[in-house]
Amino acid sequence: MADGLRVSVVEVSSAARVLCDWGSSRLRAFLEIGGEIAARGDGPGINLLGAESPARALAGMLAAWPDAHRPRVFLCGMAGSRNGLAEVPYVRAPATAQMWQEGALPVRVEGFEACIAPGILAQNFHEVADVMRGEETQIFGALSLEQQLATDTRLMVLPGTHSKWVEVCNGAITRVQTYFTGELFDLLSRHSSLLRVATDPGMDEEGFEAGVRAAARADLAASLFETRTAQLIEGRTAGWARAFLSGLLIGAELDSMLGMRALGAERLTLIGEPRLTARYRCALALNHIDAEALDGERCVLAGLRALADAQEEG
Amino acid sequence: MADGLRVSVVEVSSAARVLCDWGSSRLRAFLEIGGEIAARGDGPGINLLGAESPARALAGMLAAWPDAHRPRVFLCGMAGSRNGLAEVPYVRAPATAQMWQEGALPVRVEGFEACIAPGILAQNFHEVADVMRGEETQIFGALSLEQQLATDTRLMVLPGTHSKWVEVCNGAITRVQTYFTGELFDLLSRHSSLLRVATDPGMDEEGFEAGVRAAARADLAASLFETRTAQLIEGRTAGWARAFLSGLLIGAELDSMLGMRALGAERLTLIGEPRLTARYRCALALNHIDAEALDGERCVLAGLRALADAQEEG
Repeated sequence: MADGLRVSVVEVSSAARVLCDWGSSRLRAFLEIGGEIAARGDGPGINLLGAESPARALAGMLAAWPDAHRPRVFLCGMAGSRNGLAEVPYVRAPATAQMWQEGALPVRVEGFEACIAPGILAQNFHEVADVMRGEETQIFGALSLEQQLATDTRLMVLPGTHSKWVEVCNGAITRVQTYFTGELFDLLSRHSSLLRVATDPGMDEEGFEAGVRAAARADLAASLFETRTAQLIEGRTAGWARAFLSGLLIGAELDSMLGMRALGAERLTLIGEPRLTARYRCALALNHIDAEALDGERCVLAGLRALADAQEEG
Repeated sequence: MADGLRVSVVEVSSAARVLCDWGSSRLRAFLEIGGEIAARGDGPGINLLGAESPARALAGMLAAWPDAHRPRVFLCGMAGSRNGLAEVPYVRAPATAQMWQEGALPVRVEGFEACIAPGILAQNFHEVADVMRGEETQIFGALSLEQQLATDTRLMVLPGTHSKWVEVCNGAITRVQTYFTGELFDLLSRHSSLLRVATDPGMDEEGFEAGVRAAARADLAASLFETRTAQLIEGRTAGWARAFLSGLLIGAELDSMLGMRALGAERLTLIGEPRLTARYRCALALNHIDAEALDGERCVLAGLRALADAQEEG
């Protein structure tokens, strides 16, 4: 019995690992034991750590999980950037899941064995270098969740602080196009003269749709100021204007892609927080384009598991 | 002699007036005596007053000029906005200089006689309401400086926090299009992840021109992130990237207007600070478009004088 218990503890421990999605603005960590998520933790993003080093911040969070056996830690996102735990060189597109997994960097962090996923470096849709760190994990995760190998060309769209439109051909990432949409919305709604709304009063649907339509009517530079005149001249509420601005920026992103691609000709997959992918689906629907939506957390977990499985097998 | 002196003092006093350009971010005031600028003062803009009322701020500044005879004060810009001295209703386009002067509002401010110019409400180039407060004074000032009556259609471009493209037909303002360029550049260079440059290291010409060319190649939403990848991937300096962003935003403004108008088919006049109009001339030249440039302060003074003359005659 005593031996059996000891063996059992060792088995659980060897099957325990920590999966971390560590971006600029947020850390999400999952303790996985025997294939199940046993605990999760949230912490500040790489850009919000202040004086604390990423290594100390990570060790501090792991210490909250009492596991004497020090599980291996698998990370993706800005953890692999210059300001992260260790800089992991980008894998150049076209990049398959295998090339990406082979580009992962094993490091020792405050006594922990860690493995950091690389980002992807690719051309964007107008032939300029573009990058991502973290979104590739969601994409390879989404592909790993499918029953069959991907043998088509599709677009995967990952809305967020920096929205990424990613072309995937036969399961390999071939192009990346970044839109600054999320950060721009945050800057404009908090710091600009366009809006003075301290809190989020929810999303006004009519305002959002008016913004998407405005983006289709004129270019972004010519339309931004409408956010202000709508309040000043048309008597719109600040909540309406905030939703208008959101629709305008997301609409400008779609309009930009429509100018470069025949959207809808390829399969379009949204990956992200359900609240955000719903907004993009609404904007796409106003442009008569269908898209499927996948939950971002489910995809990033699948990607980190695929990475961890490959490392543990290798 | 004593009588002569007194008469002389009275004459100077009656010919003394204060001309103020009071915008969101800056107050510029000029004491004019006998047609000459005798003194000038600068102060905070309407949006920067904090707890002090605009009336108190203006009275405080006037008190610095020892003139017992309390000259009349003529103002333009945000002084006539909801948060200014008194809200002056917009004059609707098409608006001639005379209609604009007739729309001025006489008010009494802390014992001073003041007269505040109205702004203009017009359609923009994609048929949406747009406004200006202050720029119309520079435009009517520029027209008043010309020897003959304007009988053509032209575009006047007033770069700044909110850049205004104004169509003028036969001397009347007919359309106004606002670009958010100056405020957007300020927000993105100070608060975004695109740049981390605390001070202005001067304008890198190569970076600026690369930004103007990027704006011609792809839309603004698709190009903004290049400001970051240029530093991250191409090894560009922060100074280069800052100039790139400036060129990109000004280029997007030109590109937007090129999409709506055949620029250069009409006479194009830039009005503003020489340092800023020079940047726009450079971006226009890269697009093979000529423009003349007028000094903004000279134009606003001419406009305020025309307003003051009309009020004193009327």
